[in-house]
Amino acid sequence: MTHVYRFSKEVTDGNGGMKNILGGKGAGLAEMCRLGIPVPPGFTISTGACLDYLENGISDQLQHEVAQSVTWLEGILGKSLFGEGQPLLLSVRSGARVSMPGMMDTVLNLGLTSATVERLAEITGQRRFAYDSYRRFIQMYSNVVLGLDHHEFESRLEEIREAEGAKQDKDISVEGLMTLVDRYKEYVLHETDQPFPDDPMEQLWGSIRAVFDSWNNPRAKFYRKINNIGDNWGTAVNVQSMVFGNMGENSGTGVCFTRDPATGEPVPYGEFLVNAQGEDVVAGIRTPLKIADGSPDCMEALMPSLYKQLCGIMELLEKHFREMQDIEFTYENNVLFMLQTRTGKRTSRAALRIAVDLCKEGVISEQEAIKRVEPESMAQLLASEFDEAAKQRILAAGNLLGKGLNAGPGAATGKLVLTADKALELAAEGEDVILVRAETSPEDIEGMHTARGILTQRGGMTSHAAVVARGMGKPCVVGCSQMIVDPKNNCIRFTDRVLKEGEPISIDGTTGEVILGEIPTEESHLVRQLKAGERKPGTQGEEFSLLREWVSKHTKMLVRANADTPEDAAFARLLGAEGIGLCRTEHMFFQEDRILHIRRMILAGDADERADALNKLLPYQQGDFYELLKAMENLPVTIRLLDPPLHEFLPQTEELMEELARNMNVTPSVIKRRVNDLHELNPMLGHRGCRLGITHPEIYQMQVKAICNAAKQATDEGVTVKPEIMVPLIGSHKELDKVKESIMPIVEASAPDIPVGTMIEIPRAALTADEIAQSADFFSFGTNDLTQCGMGISRDDSGGFLPQYIDEKIIETDPFKSLDQDGIGKLVRLACSDGRATKPDIKLGVCGEHGGDPRSISFFYEAGLNYVSCSPFRVPIALLAAAQAGLQDD
Amino acid sequence: MTHVYRFSKEVTDGNGGMKNILGGKGAGLAEMCRLGIPVPPGFTISTGACLDYLENGISDQLQHEVAQSVTWLEGILGKSLFGEGQPLLLSVRSGARVSMPGMMDTVLNLGLTSATVERLAEITGQRRFAYDSYRRFIQMYSNVVLGLDHHEFESRLEEIREAEGAKQDKDISVEGLMTLVDRYKEYVLHETDQPFPDDPMEQLWGSIRAVFDSWNNPRAKFYRKINNIGDNWGTAVNVQSMVFGNMGENSGTGVCFTRDPATGEPVPYGEFLVNAQGEDVVAGIRTPLKIADGSPDCMEALMPSLYKQLCGIMELLEKHFREMQDIEFTYENNVLFMLQTRTGKRTSRAALRIAVDLCKEGVISEQEAIKRVEPESMAQLLASEFDEAAKQRILAAGNLLGKGLNAGPGAATGKLVLTADKALELAAEGEDVILVRAETSPEDIEGMHTARGILTQRGGMTSHAAVVARGMGKPCVVGCSQMIVDPKNNCIRFTDRVLKEGEPISIDGTTGEVILGEIPTEESHLVRQLKAGERKPGTQGEEFSLLREWVSKHTKMLVRANADTPEDAAFARLLGAEGIGLCRTEHMFFQEDRILHIRRMILAGDADERADALNKLLPYQQGDFYELLKAMENLPVTIRLLDPPLHEFLPQTEELMEELARNMNVTPSVIKRRVNDLHELNPMLGHRGCRLGITHPEIYQMQVKAICNAAKQATDEGVTVKPEIMVPLIGSHKELDKVKESIMPIVEASAPDIPVGTMIEIPRAALTADEIAQSADFFSFGTNDLTQCGMGISRDDSGGFLPQYIDEKIIETDPFKSLDQDGIGKLVRLACSDGRATKPDIKLGVCGEHGGDPRSISFFYEAGLNYVSCSPFRVPIALLAAAQAGLQDD
Repeated sequence: MTHVYRFSKEVTDGNGGMKNILGGKGAGLAEMCRLGIPVPPGFTISTGACLDYLENGISDQLQHEVAQSVTWLEGILGKSLFGEGQPLLLSVRSGARVSMPGMMDTVLNLGLTSATVERLAEITGQRRFAYDSYRRFIQMYSNVVLGLDHHEFESRLEEIREAEGAKQDKDISVEGLMTLVDRYKEYVLHETDQPFPDDPMEQLWGSIRAVFDSWNNPRAKFYRKINNIGDNWGTAVNVQSMVFGNMGENSGTGVCFTRDPATGEPVPYGEFLVNAQGEDVVAGIRTPLKIADGSPDCMEALMPSLYKQLCGIMELLEKHFREMQDIEFTYENNVLFMLQTRTGKRTSRAALRIAVDLCKEGVISEQEAIKRVEPESMAQLLASEFDEAAKQRILAAGNLLGKGLNAGPGAATGKLVLTADKALELAAEGEDVILVRAETSPEDIEGMHTARGILTQRGGMTSHAAVVARGMGKPCVVGCSQMIVDPKNNCIRFTDRVLKEGEPISIDGTTGEVILGEIPTEESHLVRQLKAGERKPGTQGEEFSLLREWVSKHTKMLVRANADTPEDAAFARLLGAEGIGLCRTEHMFFQEDRILHIRRMILAGDADERADALNKLLPYQQGDFYELLKAMENLPVTIRLLDPPLHEFLPQTEELMEELARNMNVTPSVIKRRVNDLHELNPMLGHRGCRLGITHPEIYQMQVKAICNAAKQATDEGVTVKPEIMVPLIGSHKELDKVKESIMPIVEASAPDIPVGTMIEIPRAALTADEIAQSADFFSFGTNDLTQCGMGISRDDSGGFLPQYIDEKIIETDPFKSLDQDGIGKLVRLACSDGRATKPDIKLGVCGEHGGDPRSISFFYEAGLNYVSCSPFRVPIALLAAAQAGLQDD
Repeated sequence: MTHVYRFSKEVTDGNGGMKNILGGKGAGLAEMCRLGIPVPPGFTISTGACLDYLENGISDQLQHEVAQSVTWLEGILGKSLFGEGQPLLLSVRSGARVSMPGMMDTVLNLGLTSATVERLAEITGQRRFAYDSYRRFIQMYSNVVLGLDHHEFESRLEEIREAEGAKQDKDISVEGLMTLVDRYKEYVLHETDQPFPDDPMEQLWGSIRAVFDSWNNPRAKFYRKINNIGDNWGTAVNVQSMVFGNMGENSGTGVCFTRDPATGEPVPYGEFLVNAQGEDVVAGIRTPLKIADGSPDCMEALMPSLYKQLCGIMELLEKHFREMQDIEFTYENNVLFMLQTRTGKRTSRAALRIAVDLCKEGVISEQEAIKRVEPESMAQLLASEFDEAAKQRILAAGNLLGKGLNAGPGAATGKLVLTADKALELAAEGEDVILVRAETSPEDIEGMHTARGILTQRGGMTSHAAVVARGMGKPCVVGCSQMIVDPKNNCIRFTDRVLKEGEPISIDGTTGEVILGEIPTEESHLVRQLKAGERKPGTQGEEFSLLREWVSKHTKMLVRANADTPEDAAFARLLGAEGIGLCRTEHMFFQEDRILHIRRMILAGDADERADALNKLLPYQQGDFYELLKAMENLPVTIRLLDPPLHEFLPQTEELMEELARNMNVTPSVIKRRVNDLHELNPMLGHRGCRLGITHPEIYQMQVKAICNAAKQATDEGVTVKPEIMVPLIGSHKELDKVKESIMPIVEASAPDIPVGTMIEIPRAALTADEIAQSADFFSFGTNDLTQCGMGISRDDSGGFLPQYIDEKIIETDPFKSLDQDGIGKLVRLACSDGRATKPDIKLGVCGEHGGDPRSISFFYEAGLNYVSCSPFRVPIALLAAAQAGLQDD
């Protein structure tokens, strides 16, 4: 046969590796049969048949093969779909290459007709079970195959229930069910002008067609689009003999996991319902029982032998598939059958534990363990948490205000503020604040940075607030539609509550909860364990450290951190950073005791005055660098020379200018004139970076002197430090040569082995990387500016169009979050290959925000970069992504 | 011989094609000998010998060849350098591959010694001539070869002159000259501890070495650097027997041109001095006579047969070299000798005429005529002019204030203003103004645009003022150092005059003159003739038109104009434009009757209000397009859809916002909020271009409708129009597809043959041109923005570093004037080849300011562009440059 693959204890045509042909479910069923696990026999119609049907309809070949397979199935079960004897009932289920939960259709209990329902009642001796199955079948078939509204069936069911005074469906009498079946059939006749099909074969083909067609229903198409699933994959159809969990008290149905999907603990975990079919579990009307929780009504206690058999199967399946399994089972009259097995979904916390445990157990290799942990999931493990008891107390008191999308993991608590300005104002007074906006825009960035967490009324997982907050590692809840932000009245409104600006509020970015009041927060469990050096077996600290070790062993690309302070550097190192890829020296200038000197430097009337101001700054910078280098002993630290335009250091309001004038003993007009002189129309493309270093060589000279002195100081104390000097905003090799002309004498006089390299952040630098490489010891791609220049988009000004671009798929993903590989990526690849052509051993890295984005990291790996650098919180994510990129081809 | 090439009536080793070996002068002398023209015989030492000398000193080989050549020269002239008989006197002159006027050294009258000077006196019977020659020789040799200060010699000459009471040098007695020779020799002995060389061979080698060495003197090196002359070319040395223009009243020396170098008129033009040597002409002490001006003391009248002979030689030389010649001659006792011939320098006006005339005369081909005119020189022919008589009257009255560099040709007159703001203010009142600044910076741009002309105290030919003014076609004088700009006192100061703001002033950007008072200006002679349709032979109108025809015939790249109004378009067409490459539609919005509608559109509360405002704008735009299309009948007109960000259309001052609020009947806060909403940090990279077209599709739809309607209106009237729609700021093919989705239904409904193309002005567009070409009928490179984004330089903010970058050669030339070929050019080439790979017949053009820059045009030709587009005034320049680029390989 070419389109149909049988599975049974006796004959199985397919196997677990054939997901593309059999779909995930079909492949799993075939593999279980091959393992000798009890599975109700059946056959899978291939995805190829689906595609053929969608193009040309049902082929003679397929018709023939299905008929043959039904006959085969009747034979091995000794049941009959058409004829006399025990009736063969079937389930018809979809099953694509990857799971598309709820997207496509299923029909159960197929084969019941006015004749077979009676035979089923006779043979089983359970008339009620037979008619209950029949009415379920008519209801499902009418909806799925005939396209009738399921509410029409529900309401007729309710009528009978009310007429009989039955509390639940199971209390309805046999007679009631028989009446219901008649009413269902009348309704179908009325609506379709056709009697409900009473021919099992007609039912079967109707169901197969319906499943095939469901591949192209709108919700399936949409799901494929957002999940990158090929339209040309098609779905398989699994036709399987029914077993009945609803055949009385010795029957039941359930779902189990081979490990705890919440914690990863290596114990079986699952739930089941006695006397029920699968829909009953989904419907959630009855509370399922646990398979093993020590209670008297768990499966282990009630049915020890069945439980033991199930555990054996779970162990076998996990060993076989070398991965935690999510299994569906049914037992009919105490006989156990498996209906599905697949890789189980799990929490971030469980994912880490399961990957590490499986490796420790020898089931998977270290490389596989690395591949098993989704990099982005590490963000959750590092995010701050609420004191859980306190949170539960407050929730129990009825303080849950609403729920939104969990856009940025972590817990945050503080005073409600409605504007970025207010956030800055209260933060300046030492308050923790939560910024709440209808939606955020780029002007809110500073406020978002200052806030403990961000909450918005509108927006999805890729909205501005969500993307920016995740980038900052901030807890964030978006799209909380129960909330109305009312800035006019300085408040936010929930259905029954109004909160004024300044009132306490908490958000849980991991769950999406918005809660009234303050709840104590703490660092994440993992961060606390890492800081405490916890490495006992079974702790997150141990798991993290083990995975970190394996990553080290198998990675080909290093991960550094962007950090400006010794504290950040030390934390990044704790999280696994292998150096500092970007230390922004300007941040050091903004501290109170320094800003006056830098302002005096900018306002200096002559070279002497300027030199004097710079001399005052030198010891500060030297001290900062010394501490930073020491914190990163033995690891490289890339220090970027001054980058922002000088006007960023001057006050911008009238009031502050006057204050500065008083401090500096000059007239305010002097300050104003200089501010005015330095004003730029497009500061992003202005007088900054190495352009400043060339027009004001004394600034870079001071900074380089500070670096060299700091290195010498540490070396003299016996500490091995590895500073690297990075020149920003280079556009041509002549610029770099000019800067080096001015700083190299200082470097060579004191510490000749400090590498000097350059950012590649201007398109022209990427285009002429062959020339620039002649003078650069390393390149570090500044992909933020490279994206801004290369796409001609100012990130700060993109709020007016970029969200629409992303919504309408004009741009695939936010290019400031994930590198635009087709465009900007071309520049990166060009610069890498041209740079290496000139200098084969040139070190290549990236220090833009893309350095912490897994998709971008994979690209950087392909492009041949030596390292990526990202914010400390994203180091573990980057480490995993980098290692996975390297293992892709293994 | 390998290093020495003889030239004489009898033997000539070299020829006119050997400039690389013999230098320009040597090759000319050789060629003249071959033509049988009388040239004092001599020999040329090759450039190769120079290079060999600079590396290894004088070789035995060279020593041997020079000695041999001297002997040969003695033989053919029957004179002797060492021995008895008539003394052989020599000149030793440098001569590189290209003329480097005054950069290297010359020695005349070489061979005179204490012995030969007496013999020369005896044989010529002119003792005074002999001693005058001797003192000249000592003076020149001492300076050039011995490196002594020439002032020391001048002061001794003056002593004698004063002692004898002589008015001029020629009045000094023989005795005086003999005394002078003695004093010179004493001085030389005193300074060098050596007697002045009395051996002709020592003099000869000293002079040869000095000429060789002068190749590396600082001023020659500098000249080579700024003129792109190879350091490894070397100079030849011409050793030639002397003839004497200073041997009495039947001798003389002069310079002549085969045509008038000022006007190009085909008549011999030249000057000469009786009884003089070359230096006397240069020194300018005596007023030379004309060779032919109808006066009784011109050469034609005084020496008709000599004049006739000279004319014959001029004719022969011009025919032979197929180019106007600049010739040096000397006659000694009525015998004529040619000392040099070379291509003559000429004015722009003459250049055009000579090229056209030579072609009409059949001397050169049309292609050669095209190559003969320097494109940039056309700017002068198009520049405005003063009423010459009025100017002369005003100058004669002593109103010349000073002189600067003639940075932008043309004449301008108006009121003196010292700030850009004042310029705008007075211009708004209808005044013509001249903007005067110490130096200009980007903030002055608007003021420069408004002013009739620009004058600066500081800066050179590539200063900001100069570059910008030339780009705008504005008259401009820079670096007028006699002037001090004193903004505090609202005035400018000259040595003896102070001008207050508001006083009338005139500048002549063609001559650099700064003049007090107003002088009537008029359009250039050429523009007036073109407007009048003048094509009579001998007029500039005819010459221009003929050249234009030839360009059309031989060009492979078209030239369009950037024009927004029918007037500009018509003028561009008159100057030869073959279409409009860029019509900026936004300029049409700024007119008083329209700006309110566009503001209403921007401030609209809902879609209806916005549609209403746009409907009001539609007829205006349609009318504009209709007129423009008609003015360009039969020629393509590329109309760019709205490009600038919306905030450019809103008022920026509080006052104007309030006024607008009153006009619109809203509160000022509505306006302020919208202005605030639209404010951008980096507007250059903001919400503009097609980004607006996507977020506000109705704007582009209105514009496209206006274009289609206008085209239909014209077509209905029987006028063939060729509109093209251009979408700005495209960064990806999806953006273009999105815009087309919205506008194509309108295009297809009315006029299906309107091409729709895109600007390539974002680096990403260039990088993904292969994809964009799928949806674009044409690409037009917006090299301004491509340069800004690609180099990460905001033109407006570059004043703080770009001038220094250009000064220090970090950047070769201003990248906004001449395309950065190594960087941005790479993007252009990439987009061309990728675009063509996708769509072989895609039309490629450029509409940035580089489209009018000859150097950039040559690059665009190589890159395969179909056309360049530039401002109307630069169309003739671009036409020539484009044609020349195409003829480069011929």
